[in-house]
Amino acid sequence: MLYSQFFTKTERQAPSDEVSINAKLLIQAGYVDKLMAGVYSLLPLGLRVYKKIEQIIREEMDAIGGQELVMPSLQPKENWEKTGRWTAMDDLYQLKVDDKEYAIGPTHEEVIAPIAKRYISSYKDLPKYAYQFQTKFRNEKRAKSGVMRGREFSMKDLYSFHADQADLDNFYEKAIVAYKNVFKRCGIGNLTYLTYASGGTFSKYSHEFQTLTRAGEDLIYICEQCKVAINKEILDDLKSKCPVCGGNILREEKAVEVGNIFKLGTKYTEPFDLFYTDKDGNKKLVIMGCYGIGLTRLMGAVVEVSSDDKGIIWPEAVAPFKVNLISLNKDAEAEKIYKDLRSAGIEVLYDDRSEVSAGEKFADSDLIGCPWRVVVSGKTLAENAVEVKQRSKEKCEIIKINDLIKTLR
Amino acid sequence: MLYSQFFTKTERQAPSDEVSINAKLLIQAGYVDKLMAGVYSLLPLGLRVYKKIEQIIREEMDAIGGQELVMPSLQPKENWEKTGRWTAMDDLYQLKVDDKEYAIGPTHEEVIAPIAKRYISSYKDLPKYAYQFQTKFRNEKRAKSGVMRGREFSMKDLYSFHADQADLDNFYEKAIVAYKNVFKRCGIGNLTYLTYASGGTFSKYSHEFQTLTRAGEDLIYICEQCKVAINKEILDDLKSKCPVCGGNILREEKAVEVGNIFKLGTKYTEPFDLFYTDKDGNKKLVIMGCYGIGLTRLMGAVVEVSSDDKGIIWPEAVAPFKVNLISLNKDAEAEKIYKDLRSAGIEVLYDDRSEVSAGEKFADSDLIGCPWRVVVSGKTLAENAVEVKQRSKEKCEIIKINDLIKTLR
Repeated sequence: MLYSQFFTKTERQAPSDEVSINAKLLIQAGYVDKLMAGVYSLLPLGLRVYKKIEQIIREEMDAIGGQELVMPSLQPKENWEKTGRWTAMDDLYQLKVDDKEYAIGPTHEEVIAPIAKRYISSYKDLPKYAYQFQTKFRNEKRAKSGVMRGREFSMKDLYSFHADQADLDNFYEKAIVAYKNVFKRCGIGNLTYLTYASGGTFSKYSHEFQTLTRAGEDLIYICEQCKVAINKEILDDLKSKCPVCGGNILREEKAVEVGNIFKLGTKYTEPFDLFYTDKDGNKKLVIMGCYGIGLTRLMGAVVEVSSDDKGIIWPEAVAPFKVNLISLNKDAEAEKIYKDLRSAGIEVLYDDRSEVSAGEKFADSDLIGCPWRVVVSGKTLAENAVEVKQRSKEKCEIIKINDLIKTLR
Repeated sequence: MLYSQFFTKTERQAPSDEVSINAKLLIQAGYVDKLMAGVYSLLPLGLRVYKKIEQIIREEMDAIGGQELVMPSLQPKENWEKTGRWTAMDDLYQLKVDDKEYAIGPTHEEVIAPIAKRYISSYKDLPKYAYQFQTKFRNEKRAKSGVMRGREFSMKDLYSFHADQADLDNFYEKAIVAYKNVFKRCGIGNLTYLTYASGGTFSKYSHEFQTLTRAGEDLIYICEQCKVAINKEILDDLKSKCPVCGGNILREEKAVEVGNIFKLGTKYTEPFDLFYTDKDGNKKLVIMGCYGIGLTRLMGAVVEVSSDDKGIIWPEAVAPFKVNLISLNKDAEAEKIYKDLRSAGIEVLYDDRSEVSAGEKFADSDLIGCPWRVVVSGKTLAENAVEVKQRSKEKCEIIKINDLIKTLR
């Protein structure tokens, strides 16, 4: 992509109405636009990051048998009354049109359960796993964490349907592994902890995936020995002991929830009469699990944990481009390198602007945060070389142009 | 994909509460689920078709310089008041929460214009083209055309920004070509007419792309010589003459609008003060165009024009799978063919069900409508062959297994 033709530009100043690092950097660099509190557009740069995160999650969900679909946001009040959440969920957006009322979907148990009822009647139809990437709406009272807490935000939600508890338990463990893969591949695996949280009616615990960051809104207590954590909400119930090893050496940290998984049991199958017939001809309620990852939240969390005072430092797997190529008045040579890199399948943002100083180009490159910066200037060209710098490192290297693709791969 | 593991199943009967062919077939075959009037889920089969249509449109929009982004559905009332559409648009969903009011986006001029204002200040910043695939919400009074007229539906909307009318006119022609490519690639090019429609304040005409179908809600008048059509709404203004050749031999047809393009002029740049500075330092309003394609509507239109009494007949480019492979008690042999086809990059839905009769498998195959059906049975296996049938043709052929991949390519 040529920077000169890009829809967005970086801005000189971070927005003054944002307090979170993720919103400041993502807006200033042109990844997102804020329409109002908690509501953001994903601009072309931001959508590139979003799609990489989405594809990582898709691959991991497909790997555990998930089948992708998309459910609507406009949902009939009746379904929400059946589960009791029409009145119980205080951040539910309720739309009144003429004499009809609708929920604007904050989650989709009320939609997936009736769909599953169409296709599940026998034990032979189980288990089933369906997931979607979908926009959720929640009336957040405090939407001050940038894209980490939106009123409108994108989520992956998977729903699993099982004949019995053992089958749910088995899949739940697979989902934990898949989730760990997602966070590892997105570059925040080492900072993300499987966290025991309140389980609700049907299960002792639910589990969150919490990523350590000073910007986190949650307090968690880490057992370093087991590499798990406990959400503050259940610390007293657990008498401040690790639920795995029983140890009481716990380290308090601030963290942000990037995923959560629940064993729902029959909470949502019962109101929709979602039964199946078992091998012996008995009618039984289907057992459900649900598994969420907030995509825009994950994107915000990555920025929170991977940035410095100059800008974002994208992990390679989710970077909008791998390389930020900069021409310092050597456009013909830079253009050739641009074409060669692209032919080699490397994603390049080529800063081809002519009216902009070297300093500004370097500053923008740091702000946007592609993993590699390649500078084409007269000085190094004299040696058939370019200057290469990783965003995450201090030092530049001079690399022969012939070795560039090998270096970047 | 193994049919036995699929999230959905076909149903024996078409739904009785639907009148349109597209909804009857798409629901019965398991492509979509109806949540309520005008609101459908895209089930895994349907999402596969949707994504193919989306990718075709994406490629064509990228080819004319479009840059993809995603804008929100939750939009502040102020923006809609600025353009006068808060009160003027009678199918606008208005959400009232506490003391605040929001539009639930039926279109995005009110969002893209303020975004563009952040990035456009000089003639050097023009032209710019941004597009999205996004869910739209409109309070349709008559949502009886299945997925062709939804209250919640998916749309591609591109917005173009220009320094002057000539530049808009030039891009507009390019967009017409891109749109023709889209409909051709989706298999309805020969039935889809560039149609002159009412232009509004800033332009003599707007243009629709209308696909001929008995299920169409619009009446258009075709000039076969020019291969263009006129929407009934402007027929009188044109004195029933073709706007291209002036001829009056026009054929009346029912059609459904699958795309539309408008020259908006300064209608939406004026309320948001979207100015640029020209070469001479003069401040001028940016000129806009907008370009829509309803994706779920397009999917419905394809079904309307390409189906028979047995089911859907997907054009190959948008089919959920290229091949429906059927095993008639020859599972080991069928499985080998399944693997070989997939290794060759061919998308296969393998009907591996054991408890289902040959007749049911054939009926489901016709209903689902993949372009090719391949039947593995003892009779043909004796000759190292399989039975191959195109969904769009009557005759079967016996093809040697060694020639199968070549035949399907």
